[in-house]
Amino acid sequence: MRGAAEDMEDVFDKRIAPILEKAMGEISDWPYFRALTPKGPGEVTVEGRPSVMAGCNDYLGLACDPRVTEAAAEAVRRYGASCSGSRSLNGTMVLHEELEHRIAAFLERPAALVTTTGFQANLMLTALLERGDTVFSDMSNHASLVDAVRLSPAARRRYRHRDLDHLERLLSAAGPDTAKLIVTDGLFSMEGDVCPLPGLGTLARRHGARLVVDGAHDIGLLGERGRGVAEHFGLMDAVDLQTGTLSKCFGSLGGFVAGPEHIVRFLRYTARPFVFTAAMSPASAAAALAALTVIETEPDRRQRVFNHAERLHNGLRALGYTTSPSVTPVVPVHIGDELLCLRAWQELLDHGVYTNAVIPPGVPSHRSLIRVTAQATHTEEQITRILDAFAAVGRLLRLVPRGAPDDYEPVDLIRPRHHATAPLPAESP
Amino acid sequence: MRGAAEDMEDVFDKRIAPILEKAMGEISDWPYFRALTPKGPGEVTVEGRPSVMAGCNDYLGLACDPRVTEAAAEAVRRYGASCSGSRSLNGTMVLHEELEHRIAAFLERPAALVTTTGFQANLMLTALLERGDTVFSDMSNHASLVDAVRLSPAARRRYRHRDLDHLERLLSAAGPDTAKLIVTDGLFSMEGDVCPLPGLGTLARRHGARLVVDGAHDIGLLGERGRGVAEHFGLMDAVDLQTGTLSKCFGSLGGFVAGPEHIVRFLRYTARPFVFTAAMSPASAAAALAALTVIETEPDRRQRVFNHAERLHNGLRALGYTTSPSVTPVVPVHIGDELLCLRAWQELLDHGVYTNAVIPPGVPSHRSLIRVTAQATHTEEQITRILDAFAAVGRLLRLVPRGAPDDYEPVDLIRPRHHATAPLPAESP
Repeated sequence: MRGAAEDMEDVFDKRIAPILEKAMGEISDWPYFRALTPKGPGEVTVEGRPSVMAGCNDYLGLACDPRVTEAAAEAVRRYGASCSGSRSLNGTMVLHEELEHRIAAFLERPAALVTTTGFQANLMLTALLERGDTVFSDMSNHASLVDAVRLSPAARRRYRHRDLDHLERLLSAAGPDTAKLIVTDGLFSMEGDVCPLPGLGTLARRHGARLVVDGAHDIGLLGERGRGVAEHFGLMDAVDLQTGTLSKCFGSLGGFVAGPEHIVRFLRYTARPFVFTAAMSPASAAAALAALTVIETEPDRRQRVFNHAERLHNGLRALGYTTSPSVTPVVPVHIGDELLCLRAWQELLDHGVYTNAVIPPGVPSHRSLIRVTAQATHTEEQITRILDAFAAVGRLLRLVPRGAPDDYEPVDLIRPRHHATAPLPAESP
Repeated sequence: MRGAAEDMEDVFDKRIAPILEKAMGEISDWPYFRALTPKGPGEVTVEGRPSVMAGCNDYLGLACDPRVTEAAAEAVRRYGASCSGSRSLNGTMVLHEELEHRIAAFLERPAALVTTTGFQANLMLTALLERGDTVFSDMSNHASLVDAVRLSPAARRRYRHRDLDHLERLLSAAGPDTAKLIVTDGLFSMEGDVCPLPGLGTLARRHGARLVVDGAHDIGLLGERGRGVAEHFGLMDAVDLQTGTLSKCFGSLGGFVAGPEHIVRFLRYTARPFVFTAAMSPASAAAALAALTVIETEPDRRQRVFNHAERLHNGLRALGYTTSPSVTPVVPVHIGDELLCLRAWQELLDHGVYTNAVIPPGVPSHRSLIRVTAQATHTEEQITRILDAFAAVGRLLRLVPRGAPDDYEPVDLIRPRHHATAPLPAESP
């Protein structure tokens, strides 16, 4: 590899962010790209060290469920390790078709399309957008929604996080002559809060906008039957197009788009990030199918995640930590300073708990946090170990006041409710 | 799902291309999104109908190789069906690290990064581009390279397909004050021709540009050891950054970027399509590792693909078909008219051969083609069946002149050479 001439501009003249360089110099135990190995329910080894897994998106604990892994292994043997091509030309298998039918039925949408990653499912939205259209995007939306809009010729208006007044002003200012799309995460993955769907639905109707909700973190987890924020709010019809991922609650890899037949058909033939990508692997499709059956038949798993989440939120608040604005099993523990956050992560690992350290650009400057997540497969004892570690590290790094405050406000989670019509929970593994 | 008000613009007011609608009305047997099931080497069933698989990117026949599928099945059991998160926060496993070391060593690059799809590997390039930079892109480049540039703030200059004079004019016109990146496919996937690497290397040096080559279809297939067009031309150093996919020669799913340490490190922390995507699944990583071992130890597989490709090219040319400009096992059979192409595809399937019908926007208008590919696992008898089907369909639809021309020009493929230093072929399965 030669260098470009000394006096010329060079696209390879690149450095990572100074904050990362600084942190790398000061932190011996680096929180990113650590090799993890699952070691049983709720547990991993981090390069040999056993730890409680408290920083994971496998909320229902299905990635290592034998029903899911055996389905995947069987599919590899039967269909091969790869589809070796795009869905349209040579990469479609009956597994994809079955998964699309099952997801459409689960979400009560006329049609669904499965994609190779969740990122790609959102990126496909770019195909819906033309010059002259306007997209209204929550400022905290996932990068894949942001990039879908950037990749399109549409105008982008960012509204302040969950701020319906701001959104309404932007919608009014855009006027009636532009086609409008509102895009939002369902459950925001770093802070654990949810989109204000009732208000979004009202504004969309009032201004003739279409509403797309990315259910990456809420489908499988929220709502009586696991159908996400739309079901939680009892507003399935307010969402015009639902996107989502299979790498979180579904314990697999891939994504989906579900909505009107003609839109799904249009995306199948025109969305470049879909048309020109190799298909989801047979193993991932089979794993997602097996996981969907569990999601549909074991609502108790969702209850268990919320039980653990409630203990985590209230236990952390009792210690003096702040976990707002979360109302879900994604529990943000606010630290603030970047280096302090990285040190807290390191100490938590030393205390046997693996979490996620989220620093800029994942969050705004000086709003670094430790992201903790509950899993259906956690034991009560594991939740206790997580809370004990936060107690010890809080004292050690003076993250919390001495002595537990006894006036903390208990969390009010948006727990899925059991109704008479809910399927009976199957036996727990 | 409500409709937007009648008199308003609506982003859901969408229709697929008229040419597709027209074709769907006239063709009973639709060539796209057909469910395929592998049925042994070189063979698939197309919704029940047994066919020779002649439209596949699994050139080396590894997707169903028991060594690859068993490695994938074992990884699912050991590591689960999913990594359930991004590489940086919670999705890295030793399998990813091992695969990155092995790919870097294989390609003789200081470092490599594996990605969840090949599309994503190219899309990551957007992180290298800043406002004021200029990208020079072959007009026939893959959609993922095109979208990477679109997603960036850099200026884009498209040069005519493989036209070095045009590229040089564009480089000169851009002047010395802009950082320059040349991006090209190694092997162009629809027409089977390869990039003019020696000339591209010379121009890049002369104009201080960096050169990125996407080896999606050539790595594993071209070059003495399978290291793609760079090795074929003996110009490994001319390529500054190598991207590629694991869903073709590697019989798996995923992609990679390989190049200088600091660039790979920069991309790990800053490329949004990488940072914000769930990691490659354990099964896919293990499959790719097993496939790489085969690629490194069984050069005979490449020779077998080329032997079959030579028979296909010359057999088709002897029948009166045109397969230029291909010099590889990707064999484009030029038909021209869209509907005729779809009918030819249908007739070929009725004759027991599955191919790919490529119509606009995959190719320019009136340049539709049937894409045929050779696989290492094809038998001589299967190649004969492919040629027999083209002979019959050619007569039936009058695609070729009556009576075989005996003055066709034999193809000159860019066959990987065996050198004394090449590893000995292992036993074939």
